[in-house]
Amino acid sequence: MPELRRDPVNGRWVIVDTERPTQPSEFEVEKHIKKRGTCPFCYGNEQMTPPEVDVERPKQGKPDTSGWLVRVVPNKFPALKIDERLLRKGEGLYDMSSGVGAHEVIIETPDHNKEMCELSLEEMERVIQAYRRRSIELGKDERFKYILIFKNYGKSAGTSLEHPHSQLIALPSIPKSVAEELRGSHFYYEYKERCIFCDMLYQEFQDSVRMILDNSKFLSFAPFSSRFPYETWIVPKKHHSQFSSLDEEEIKKLAKILKEVLLRIKKVLNDPSYNFIIHTSPIGEERMDYHWHLEIMPRLIRTAGFEWGSGFYINPTSPEVAAEHLREVKI
Amino acid sequence: MPELRRDPVNGRWVIVDTERPTQPSEFEVEKHIKKRGTCPFCYGNEQMTPPEVDVERPKQGKPDTSGWLVRVVPNKFPALKIDERLLRKGEGLYDMSSGVGAHEVIIETPDHNKEMCELSLEEMERVIQAYRRRSIELGKDERFKYILIFKNYGKSAGTSLEHPHSQLIALPSIPKSVAEELRGSHFYYEYKERCIFCDMLYQEFQDSVRMILDNSKFLSFAPFSSRFPYETWIVPKKHHSQFSSLDEEEIKKLAKILKEVLLRIKKVLNDPSYNFIIHTSPIGEERMDYHWHLEIMPRLIRTAGFEWGSGFYINPTSPEVAAEHLREVKI
Repeated sequence: MPELRRDPVNGRWVIVDTERPTQPSEFEVEKHIKKRGTCPFCYGNEQMTPPEVDVERPKQGKPDTSGWLVRVVPNKFPALKIDERLLRKGEGLYDMSSGVGAHEVIIETPDHNKEMCELSLEEMERVIQAYRRRSIELGKDERFKYILIFKNYGKSAGTSLEHPHSQLIALPSIPKSVAEELRGSHFYYEYKERCIFCDMLYQEFQDSVRMILDNSKFLSFAPFSSRFPYETWIVPKKHHSQFSSLDEEEIKKLAKILKEVLLRIKKVLNDPSYNFIIHTSPIGEERMDYHWHLEIMPRLIRTAGFEWGSGFYINPTSPEVAAEHLREVKI
Repeated sequence: MPELRRDPVNGRWVIVDTERPTQPSEFEVEKHIKKRGTCPFCYGNEQMTPPEVDVERPKQGKPDTSGWLVRVVPNKFPALKIDERLLRKGEGLYDMSSGVGAHEVIIETPDHNKEMCELSLEEMERVIQAYRRRSIELGKDERFKYILIFKNYGKSAGTSLEHPHSQLIALPSIPKSVAEELRGSHFYYEYKERCIFCDMLYQEFQDSVRMILDNSKFLSFAPFSSRFPYETWIVPKKHHSQFSSLDEEEIKKLAKILKEVLLRIKKVLNDPSYNFIIHTSPIGEERMDYHWHLEIMPRLIRTAGFEWGSGFYINPTSPEVAAEHLREVKI
C-alpha cells in the first residue's frame, strides 16, 4: 500500500511506494562520457576562465597558471554579477532587485578524468576547505544574505562541463526552500525547545532502518519523507547551523563520509547523475533552531512531471529500501 | 544585467536573464515519436485499462467498448488507492497517512495520433467538461481535500504513453505549492482586501508587456517571476477560487484560449514537451482570497540542477521576451 509521508521540517507530503519498490536496476541511467578536446578547467588553459579568486598551490607560482590542486574562479556566464549595486524596488504588485551576487566554480582537481567520488581523502578535504574559505570570504560582503554551495554531476543533473567541479552562488536574498526550512524548524524549536534536526538524528539512530553510514562526526541516512529515490542526507552530529563553522577534524570526517556515500550511490545505482546541495543558515546567523546539512539527490527519475508545479512528490522507492541497498553494498 | 524577481504570491525569488535572453531556437527540443503497437487508450483495447469511471458516448453502448469520445479510467498503476481507509498517525517525529486517493487518466480523444493542441474546439471542451465532472464527483468523497489536474506532454515531461491524456489525482492533503499560494494570497487579501490574482490581471493589462492572448473570459500572460522560460498562465477574468465553478460559456472560452496558447507554444518552440497544472482551492472552499488558474510549463531546460533543492530558479528568457514571441507568432 502506498503511504503518504509528511516532511517534519517543511510540511511537504510525499507519496512513497512501500508496496513494490523500484529496484536499482530498473532505473534508466545515462552514460557519462568524458569528451576529448580543450577543457577550460585543465592545466594550461587557466586563461580560458576569469582570473582565479582562490587557489591552493603546493609550490609558489603565478596566479592563473598550472600547478594548482584546487582552483576557484568566477563563472564565465554568471547568473548574478558581483559588480552591481544592490537596488530593491517595486513595480505595482511586483518586487525586484538588481542581480547582484557571486557565481563561482570550484574546480575540484586538475585531473579531468576523475569523478568526485574518486578523489583521494586529501583531495576531498581540499575541496571542502575551499567551500569553507569561499563561504567565509563572501560572507563578509554585506550585500549578500545567503551562500548556496552545490554540485551537479552528469548531464541530466545540469552539468555542461565534465571536469569535476562544484558551484557556489552568493545571493542577496534567502532561497525559498531554505526560508521554509528555517520557518519549520523554528516552529518546532519554539514548541519543543530542541533542534528538529538533532531530534531527527536521535530518532534515525533508534529506528536504524534508514541509516546508511556514520562516523564520529556525521550521520548519513535516507530521510523519512525522501522526495526522490535514494535521496541521501549527511548531517553533522554536533549542532551547528552554519556550514562554515566546520573545524579541521569535521572537514576530515565530512570528506570521508561524502566520498563513501558517493561511492555507494555509484555502485548501487550504476553511476547515476546527481545533485548535492549544502543547506546552511543565512550569513552571520548562528541559530539554535537550525542545523546545517548536505542533501544528495540522485537523478533517477526521468522527470518531475507535475511535481514541479504542485510540490507533491511521488517516490517509487521507500527510503528504507534505498538505505538498505546503500548500507549493505560492498565498495 | 540579470534581475532578481520576487513572486508576489509565494515569495520565491527567480533570477531572470534580462540581458541576453535565450532565443527559441537555442533550446534543445526532443522529438515526439508516435510508436506503433498496441495502445491501451485506443478503440478496441478498452479491456486493457481498469473499468471506466466516466465516459462520453454519442450513441448508447456498453461500458468499456469503443465508440466513446472522452473516457476516464483509473490509473492502472495508481500512486494512491481509492479503496483505503484514511488513517493518520505519528511515529516519533514523523507523520504519515495511508495512501488513500484517486489517480485517474482522462483519455482526451480516441485518435492516437493527435496532440491536445490539435483537438477541435468541441473536443477540447469535452476534455474540460470531463475535468469538471470528475472534480465535482470526487469532491463528494469526504476523505479527499484536494483535486490536482495536470497533463504531461512528451517524454521529458514525464509521459509514458503518447496517446493524448491528462491525469487527475485526488489527495487527502493539500499540496505544498498550493498551501503556499493560499497563504501568500491570504496575507495579501488581509492587507488589501483584494484578491492578488485579480490585481495581477489588472496590472498585466496595464503593463501589457507580458500579455499573450485574451478573450472575454480569460487572460493568458507570462508571469512576472516565471521560473521557466516560456512559462504561461491562463487566468479567468471573473473571480472564482474553484476550477469546478466554470460555467458552460467559460468552458468554451477556456477551450479556445488553451488550444491557441498550446498551438503558439508548439509553433514558437518547435513542439516542446510541457506540463500544465490546474491550481484551484481545496475541495469545498470558495474563497475571496484565491483565484484558480492554469499554469503551463514548457520543458526547455534539460535540468533543474540546484533549483530542486534550493527553490531558487534561474530563468534564461525573461517573460517579456517570451510573451512577445508567443503574442506575435502567426498560427
